[in-house]
Amino acid sequence: MPLNPDQLAEIQDLRSSPKQTVRAVSEGMEKHLYHAIDVLDHGFVRVIDYMGDDAAICQAARVSYGKGTKSVQNDEGLIRYLMRHWHSTPFEMCEIKLHVKLPVFVARQWIRHRTANVNEYSARYSILDREFYIPAPEHVNAQSVVNNQGRGEVLEGEEAARVLEILKADSNRAYDNYEAMISEEGQLGLARELARMNLPSNIYTQWYWKVDLHNLLHFLRLRADPHAQYEIRVYADAICQVVADWVPAAYKAFEDYRLGAVTMSAQMMVALRGLLKGEEVTAESCGMSAREWREFQDMIDA
Amino acid sequence: MPLNPDQLAEIQDLRSSPKQTVRAVSEGMEKHLYHAIDVLDHGFVRVIDYMGDDAAICQAARVSYGKGTKSVQNDEGLIRYLMRHWHSTPFEMCEIKLHVKLPVFVARQWIRHRTANVNEYSARYSILDREFYIPAPEHVNAQSVVNNQGRGEVLEGEEAARVLEILKADSNRAYDNYEAMISEEGQLGLARELARMNLPSNIYTQWYWKVDLHNLLHFLRLRADPHAQYEIRVYADAICQVVADWVPAAYKAFEDYRLGAVTMSAQMMVALRGLLKGEEVTAESCGMSAREWREFQDMIDA
Amino acid sequence: MPLNPDQLAEIQDLRSSPKQTVRAVSEGMEKHLYHAIDVLDHGFVRVIDYMGDDAAICQAARVSYGKGTKSVQNDEGLIRYLMRHWHSTPFEMCEIKLHVKLPVFVARQWIRHRTANVNEYSARYSILDREFYIPAPEHVNAQSVVNNQGRGEVLEGEEAARVLEILKADSNRAYDNYEAMISEEGQLGLARELARMNLPSNIYTQWYWKVDLHNLLHFLRLRADPHAQYEIRVYADAICQVVADWVPAAYKAFEDYRLGAVTMSAQMMVALRGLLKGEEVTAESCGMSAREWREFQDMIDA
Amino acid sequence: MPLNPDQLAEIQDLRSSPKQTVRAVSEGMEKHLYHAIDVLDHGFVRVIDYMGDDAAICQAARVSYGKGTKSVQNDEGLIRYLMRHWHSTPFEMCEIKLHVKLPVFVARQWIRHRTANVNEYSARYSILDREFYIPAPEHVNAQSVVNNQGRGEVLEGEEAARVLEILKADSNRAYDNYEAMISEEGQLGLARELARMNLPSNIYTQWYWKVDLHNLLHFLRLRADPHAQYEIRVYADAICQVVADWVPAAYKAFEDYRLGAVTMSAQMMVALRGLLKGEEVTAESCGMSAREWREFQDMIDA
Repeated sequence: MPLNPDQLAEIQDLRSSPKQTVRAVSEGMEKHLYHAIDVLDHGFVRVIDYMGDDAAICQAARVSYGKGTKSVQNDEGLIRYLMRHWHSTPFEMCEIKLHVKLPVFVARQWIRHRTANVNEYSARYSILDREFYIPAPEHVNAQSVVNNQGRGEVLEGEEAARVLEILKADSNRAYDNYEAMISEEGQLGLARELARMNLPSNIYTQWYWKVDLHNLLHFLRLRADPHAQYEIRVYADAICQVVADWVPAAYKAFEDYRLGAVTMSAQMMVALRGLLKGEEVTAESCGMSAREWREFQDMIDA
Repeated sequence: MPLNPDQLAEIQDLRSSPKQTVRAVSEGMEKHLYHAIDVLDHGFVRVIDYMGDDAAICQAARVSYGKGTKSVQNDEGLIRYLMRHWHSTPFEMCEIKLHVKLPVFVARQWIRHRTANVNEYSARYSILDREFYIPAPEHVNAQSVVNNQGRGEVLEGEEAARVLEILKADSNRAYDNYEAMISEEGQLGLARELARMNLPSNIYTQWYWKVDLHNLLHFLRLRADPHAQYEIRVYADAICQVVADWVPAAYKAFEDYRLGAVTMSAQMMVALRGLLKGEEVTAESCGMSAREWREFQDMIDA
Repeated sequence: MPLNPDQLAEIQDLRSSPKQTVRAVSEGMEKHLYHAIDVLDHGFVRVIDYMGDDAAICQAARVSYGKGTKSVQNDEGLIRYLMRHWHSTPFEMCEIKLHVKLPVFVARQWIRHRTANVNEYSARYSILDREFYIPAPEHVNAQSVVNNQGRGEVLEGEEAARVLEILKADSNRAYDNYEAMISEEGQLGLARELARMNLPSNIYTQWYWKVDLHNLLHFLRLRADPHAQYEIRVYADAICQVVADWVPAAYKAFEDYRLGAVTMSAQMMVALRGLLKGEEVTAESCGMSAREWREFQDMIDA
Repeated sequence: MPLNPDQLAEIQDLRSSPKQTVRAVSEGMEKHLYHAIDVLDHGFVRVIDYMGDDAAICQAARVSYGKGTKSVQNDEGLIRYLMRHWHSTPFEMCEIKLHVKLPVFVARQWIRHRTANVNEYSARYSILDREFYIPAPEHVNAQSVVNNQGRGEVLEGEEAARVLEILKADSNRAYDNYEAMISEEGQLGLARELARMNLPSNIYTQWYWKVDLHNLLHFLRLRADPHAQYEIRVYADAICQVVADWVPAAYKAFEDYRLGAVTMSAQMMVALRGLLKGEEVTAESCGMSAREWREFQDMIDA
């Protein structure tokens, strides 16, 4: 699904003919419109539309009549206060619509975030393109030995080569057979809704995805996290760039109070207050399991 | 909460300084921005922002790269097809944000529509204004004698006068006492979060309400319906005007396939097919209750 | 993932040791608990738990203190009234939890119904089994020539044989390679979260799916429909059996007012009223497109 | 709406005739069924139904076939792990249905939690009872002088007496007039949907409220918090008791990782690590505002 000349011309045309609006405009976001950010080998994230800006968050929080801003500084303070105290509804007043091209196995993780609107390319109706995600060699990792749900060291040498060879060969064979099954030359041709089942989940799909800022930040907190699978994390990282340009004050508050924040349990707080008073504390004395104690050490040492 | 000169100046300023955008712009909607539509005696509906237009619905349905429209005619046909066959996700790709001022008892019905974003004026934090809904005389009706959940004929003469007198007097007394309780003159002053409980539910509140087009149309179908309470129906009617200007093709399809449409049960379809063949049909012969039979007669006679 | 003897024993044990409860019990549903209904070649639907029954719908509609039922007959009438007039909240008061085993391409359609709770088997964490959906010969169809989004006649002879051969061979090769890549014999072994991308979407996954009755009926209306893809429709059909036993009155109302019902547009109602009066009506005279006129003819002839 | 003898007899009957089920049963919860917990002066919380228990959370997390538990100890560890790492979907697999009687101003806060099912007593259809919330003297507080959205010291003496007198008198007068307006003696009688607007928001309403455990815990975290308004907090506290009996392991994890937990911002973590190393840290050196610094001090001193 690379852009053909007609599509490029149409997009070029849209970009070069701005229109007038009396709505809130985010200058930082306007420059992203219609510009795809490349992700993985064939994917992208492209901003289609947006609603609101930092001031709109404050305007809603104040349920005000006019622009709702007293000063940029006041707005930043208010946004930080709202984020810190989990007042989520004002952040729901901003909305973004993205066009995303992504492998099916990434799409399957992504769609678990339910509070969003989605229109996906239909493989019942249309024919999928021959585009498969093949990881770059530096992202072909072994199963982690410490975390059942993650990857460990990078594969090297023959093993890595074998994996890449298998992924490429199987993708191409599956697609050859997909084409052969739906072909109407000399045969009726299998229904698309059936033929698609032969395709592996590294094939690319695409969708329009629309979500409010509060739910987007929740998505980013989980998916831009180091524990998220690399292949969805790179999409989250790309969207983080966009959000930072769209609503800079909200994004900064998000970095400080979510991405960079740490939640300590009741037991950890007991341990912490003990440490600050110079007391001796242990996992046992605070009621933590060995695993929690390790997590606690990581938090205060990091 | 009437607008003060500063607010009016600010709004005037926003309206008179349009900005450039490369987003989709709905000309019909731009003219609504910042113009309140009066509803009831002190209420209003005011468009704050919107995302998308008729073309955006089609663009998402086609998950296309560019403008996504081949022609206006094609777009209209596609939109009608989507509406007729309950393909709701493309309509979710448009979004609207309204500022609404409304009586509390109307707000309580409205908020039952859960798929929306809301920021309401906080009476814990702020002081409510002395503004109460007092119905116009032509909207003071008796309890319906045929429908437990509705109103019947208009009250007249002394009874009507008495009702209006009560509503006005009780509203004012409640507000006087609200003010007296929170006053800090010569006393500490009751907490606002407590004092508000003395106010009747015809007092006005206000909120920012943001919703996607699919869920908005669902709201309108239920609330612009003749069975909806008059006081919420007038808000729905006002929003219908806005939507007709915003996404004219989608609104026309909504009128044809939702507002003006009729759903017939399996039994009604049996009766209907019988009638069209000139057969004699009765409630019994088709398995309808007396009530369903009356509803069926109303549908085909209307 | 067929049941092993330990699992069978455990399930047998659960079934044979009923406990006492003072909650609402649906006798029709109790017999379904822990009994899988087979669907497709390796799939199933299994009721894990449920909340409520027909009486619970009425109890909530009446917001009553006790059982909330005056008589079974009253309850049926109330349920039919609620269904007919789209009063959906009482139906949300019943809940069901299912364990479903299904091919990934079916899961991808299913998950688009967002108002539900889901826990899916994790292929990041665990290894998938070698179980693939291979359609029965009578369900291998050609692409439809009248509907871009559907299937037409059954494939026969060599073409059908070729399709089945491809699906089987590609599934097995993909799984062989999946196993080879994750194997830790003589190599590190590829991370599971990466290896899974080689698997085609006819592989089986499984999940726990919990949903309220209102949203379940919406799912069934769309997925038990003749236009739904066969492979999801059979799951919907299986669940219809379960619901009919669980809440018989609600299910009957659903059949009459949803599954067997027909929605006519404003234009269709004009045509219909004309026909009933013996007038001549045409697509043009009623403002219908050729396509809508055909749909109208199908409705009244069916 | 106190229970009449018929209702009491019906409830007594339900309690004394347990039925058999093969579903998961929580013994701790069975004893709550049909027993109202009194809240405020006329309100209550009453468990109507529930689905699932601690084991059901683990069963879903493991997407297992049978009971899904290896041992109670294993289950507790898993539940703590899920809670600590924000794996919320397994907690959605439990569901509760409550009957709640509460003042309208509390209901207005409560309903802002959108992911729940609600059936409220209809004042369009039915007549409300003469039951108003009048705070106990120890809960009549002044507006807070440090927090715009809260209450300060308890009012005393004449001021307190005056407030209580106003609330009682206005409630009763409003209700007298409500009755007078809807009366059909010697007049038509005002429609109920209109008359209700004269009633203040301390009148009691009631509803059935159904919610999954994950969303319930979110509700409890916000509403059992010391910053929540007292009148909703007492409902949250009552529900906490119920949840502790229903799913003891999940509730304990909720106490440790939510209610008793503390979230520190990126800046606070810098300050904390400095303090633990014995360094001198200030608001400025860590990039905190004066307000954040105060909040930080409160966290580590508490």
